[in-house]
Amino acid sequence: MTEALSKKKPLIYALYASPLSGPEVEVESFKIIDREAPRHSFSPEEWQVVRRMVHATGDFDILEAARFSPGAISSAITALREGAPIFTDSNMIRSGLSLARLRSVFAGYDAHRLICHVADEDVMRQARVKGLPRSLFGVCKAKPILPGAITVFGNAPIALMELNRMILEENIRPALVIAMPVGFVHVVESKRELMSLEVPYIALDGRRGGSPLAVSVIHALCSLASPGKNLSS
Amino acid sequence: MTEALSKKKPLIYALYASPLSGPEVEVESFKIIDREAPRHSFSPEEWQVVRRMVHATGDFDILEAARFSPGAISSAITALREGAPIFTDSNMIRSGLSLARLRSVFAGYDAHRLICHVADEDVMRQARVKGLPRSLFGVCKAKPILPGAITVFGNAPIALMELNRMILEENIRPALVIAMPVGFVHVVESKRELMSLEVPYIALDGRRGGSPLAVSVIHALCSLASPGKNLSS
Repeated sequence: MTEALSKKKPLIYALYASPLSGPEVEVESFKIIDREAPRHSFSPEEWQVVRRMVHATGDFDILEAARFSPGAISSAITALREGAPIFTDSNMIRSGLSLARLRSVFAGYDAHRLICHVADEDVMRQARVKGLPRSLFGVCKAKPILPGAITVFGNAPIALMELNRMILEENIRPALVIAMPVGFVHVVESKRELMSLEVPYIALDGRRGGSPLAVSVIHALCSLASPGKNLSS
Repeated sequence: MTEALSKKKPLIYALYASPLSGPEVEVESFKIIDREAPRHSFSPEEWQVVRRMVHATGDFDILEAARFSPGAISSAITALREGAPIFTDSNMIRSGLSLARLRSVFAGYDAHRLICHVADEDVMRQARVKGLPRSLFGVCKAKPILPGAITVFGNAPIALMELNRMILEENIRPALVIAMPVGFVHVVESKRELMSLEVPYIALDGRRGGSPLAVSVIHALCSLASPGKNLSS
């Protein structure tokens, strides 16, 4: 270590001098986002969702790609208040979801209502045998609980496409589809197909997406759905 | 459902007609990224890392913000080959890491070498008592294993700042710091401080970051470190 470096005072001491809790950091972040956000035409409730997506990525480009079907937010709020199961296409999303936030809406939320099958033995075996992604067999296995569920796709376009097929061919209707797979192969078209269907959705058009974005949508919906909701937090 | 919709043929049938496995999708994605990437001055090994970050986000803007300290990649490769512990600032990162990829480098990698303390009882209690983020107490608890470890920050700037303090004041030297907290409060300065220190780092300058980006860096390093590594995969 050079002498110059050893004389630097670490930044964290300034934080200790005026500490912010996690919730205070969140409030401050939202203030900054509101101040810096470009003009947009989202409704106040939609903006609650988009703002949290900006918060999750540190990036205002999200505003250009966020899409809501009419009634998506009210359908999701109703489902959350009834404790609807939440299907996720990856364990990363499942582990990112806050049970505390979910329980602020419906006290009975627990790990059993967060459904992700990609690491199940039978799903992994099917994927190996068929040479197709595990997420596809994960969504197939979840089919019985998908009607009325909140379904969350932050990774796997093929799983979203299989849900699209179920919606088209089997009339399966989730309460909400969060359509945010990410990447360069099958991703754009999987979202476009979903957005052509008659189902409540919140989507991110284009190649971008990912687990934190998908999680942020659920957490924003929790704020909107919880009885003590506060538009500034 | 309208008649028009019911006549649509779901896109997934085209996939079944010419299915791609997960690894094949990855190869195809990297081809698209290589073809579309703007000009850059990353070394071939650095590009392996940045390309996977683009893959994780669907976004080429990553190229403008990615930063490598000299020798960061070789330090990380050595550490991975020796089975160095991997500290993460969130369970979302921990659950996103692929043990299969890690084991392709060092066969002894298991869940015990992936360290995340934010959900530990004692850490949660300290955070409650002090009114400060759990991630701060998580990194403090991990201090004994940080020298020589791979440390991964995809969420919590305050935890990164505490590591910066340990580097400055206690001469603690991880084998690599992945500095990718995300957001609007304390984030930019936590990364700037880290990049001023004499420690191997891979960072994303600015507000952007997040768990999938941090995970993608580790997975790219696994490809570079594994004996059967292939520059095209």
